[in-house]
Amino acid sequence: MRIAQIAPLMESVPPRLYGGTERIVSYLTEELVRLGHDVTLFASGDSVTSAELAGCAVTALRLDPAVQDPIPHYMLMLDQVRERAEEFDILHFHIDMFHFPLFRPMAGRTLTTLHGRQDLPDLRAFYFGFRDMPLVSISHAQREPLPHARFIGTVHHGIPIDLHQPVYRPGGGYVAFLGRISPEKRPDRAIRIARKLGIQLKIAAKVDKVDEAYFRDQIAPLLKEPGVEFIGEINERDKQQFLGEALALLFPVAWPEPFGLVMIEAMACATPVLAFRCGSVPEVVDDGVSGRIVDTEEQAVGALEEILAFDRPAIRQRFEERFTSTRMAKDYLSIYRALRRQRKSIVESESDVPLQLQHIGDHGLTAHVD
Amino acid sequence: MRIAQIAPLMESVPPRLYGGTERIVSYLTEELVRLGHDVTLFASGDSVTSAELAGCAVTALRLDPAVQDPIPHYMLMLDQVRERAEEFDILHFHIDMFHFPLFRPMAGRTLTTLHGRQDLPDLRAFYFGFRDMPLVSISHAQREPLPHARFIGTVHHGIPIDLHQPVYRPGGGYVAFLGRISPEKRPDRAIRIARKLGIQLKIAAKVDKVDEAYFRDQIAPLLKEPGVEFIGEINERDKQQFLGEALALLFPVAWPEPFGLVMIEAMACATPVLAFRCGSVPEVVDDGVSGRIVDTEEQAVGALEEILAFDRPAIRQRFEERFTSTRMAKDYLSIYRALRRQRKSIVESESDVPLQLQHIGDHGLTAHVD
Repeated sequence: MRIAQIAPLMESVPPRLYGGTERIVSYLTEELVRLGHDVTLFASGDSVTSAELAGCAVTALRLDPAVQDPIPHYMLMLDQVRERAEEFDILHFHIDMFHFPLFRPMAGRTLTTLHGRQDLPDLRAFYFGFRDMPLVSISHAQREPLPHARFIGTVHHGIPIDLHQPVYRPGGGYVAFLGRISPEKRPDRAIRIARKLGIQLKIAAKVDKVDEAYFRDQIAPLLKEPGVEFIGEINERDKQQFLGEALALLFPVAWPEPFGLVMIEAMACATPVLAFRCGSVPEVVDDGVSGRIVDTEEQAVGALEEILAFDRPAIRQRFEERFTSTRMAKDYLSIYRALRRQRKSIVESESDVPLQLQHIGDHGLTAHVD
Repeated sequence: MRIAQIAPLMESVPPRLYGGTERIVSYLTEELVRLGHDVTLFASGDSVTSAELAGCAVTALRLDPAVQDPIPHYMLMLDQVRERAEEFDILHFHIDMFHFPLFRPMAGRTLTTLHGRQDLPDLRAFYFGFRDMPLVSISHAQREPLPHARFIGTVHHGIPIDLHQPVYRPGGGYVAFLGRISPEKRPDRAIRIARKLGIQLKIAAKVDKVDEAYFRDQIAPLLKEPGVEFIGEINERDKQQFLGEALALLFPVAWPEPFGLVMIEAMACATPVLAFRCGSVPEVVDDGVSGRIVDTEEQAVGALEEILAFDRPAIRQRFEERFTSTRMAKDYLSIYRALRRQRKSIVESESDVPLQLQHIGDHGLTAHVD
């Protein structure tokens, strides 16, 4: 298939530093190429890919000091995609909203993956207004605020099978918190849970500008407690050791988590996950196998003791079954093919009925449409 | 002609409070209707117009507490415009950048007025990339940072001839500063100039959130000086008295002013303008007739004494000649007609040469293309 992947321009693909969406687009693109497809990646010009790169800005916008407003760069990218649209069987967008009015006339040839939280009130009217544009959610939970949007599948994220190595005998003697220091991610809960059990906690996290006051006022004082270590932001390479040597990952979120990549990264390292029931969590963690899902801090303390004894090879196995980028790419291919069949059947019946996509794979764990 | 005006959604048309672009779109729309044209106004649903209103959001986005992100609402508006595009001879956009990729295939039927400053580095590549989309500048000075953009005319703003009444014997005994308290608008200069002459200064200005520190640290201390009065934000109705009773308007800006509506509002009241040479100023103020243009505070002190003796009826007359909304609407109509002729001649010659618009009225004071 001739496939266009349209990535955000804020970070390169893959990103140099942080950038969950750009990482997923990279994994998907590389996997589609490996599976023999003809892929063009529309992304910032400093991206690195085995697909054809259609560079849409000289460098990633967030790292370019000359860039003050990303919008003009997105408009230029869309213009480039529009100009080449006829070359592709499918145009797969990862850029939120800018492309909707432009590509609506070819809605059936597009697919949009929603990567962020979707509970902004402005989005309801938006997705209802564009309800012929096929969408993919990255968890079922992500769809909840959007009952009238045209979701045609859920595709859970996946990462390359060899990105992380499983560690079956971790030697770190600590539990891990990895991500952002922010009120939604609840590092305070992680600290209290670890303290209750008297187990060491290591926190690897960045502090965004908007969260600086929260960090200073709420979290910094807690970091002085014994057994709590704050190691700041870590890069992709350091993750292997940080997650692999950990006894467990604490994921005590309190927000509509759309997916939560770090959970599957831990699983790839064979590390169990203790997570709070929020957003995507029940879809990602297999309760009792790859971790435990809890509702309160009290439950969390008990559950943490349990998962320290979990079978780590079984966790890795579950990762390999459910969360590799190969599985993700195959799920997307199923959806691309279903869209193509829909178009063909419309063309063959020579009907001029407007393109009406059926909901596909709506309630499976992942999209299985073939 | 069948004309679509596409307005920003942040404020209604006309705006309830502040909103220069929305005011101009309103004046233009009403004038085009009065001149007998078939006009559709795409704007927030609480707009008031004698044209056909195509409501694109229930209320102005800035005043709607449920709105957190304006982008989805703009995308829905563009979709609505696209759907009805064939109904119009001309689509006149006032919304910056979102419409460029979508309407490029019908570039020759569109016109975009740039309302803001254009010296953001991101914009150069943007307007070069979309160089077949015809643009109008609101002053020649506004074009300076964009040598490669396709400007086809400059149309200075205009206001209804009866919006303000001339005051030939002002009784206020003060000079006026009207606008925003911000470093670009240089209220500090206004204060020093008035103080030097021992003449009373009244400042009617709003303080935006971003400028609060500037107001507190730089301006508030100066307001305690004798002869300086700060009266806060005023509404449209209060402007008549504030500008009309003033001996002069001080406009000591230090930024690339794209137009400066307040200058022509003062002129409509027959009030002379003392302005610093910046951006559009030399195009708007007729030096020696409607005011004086200076480069330094020293010059300003001398010039202010001069303009207090200017012939106020001559100022009003200059306003009526140059800055009414009727003149503005006629200028735009000339450009609309020129675009239509261009399209017709292309169609008639049955050529498939891509639409190449010639630059029209490039160096006149306003566009005169008929």
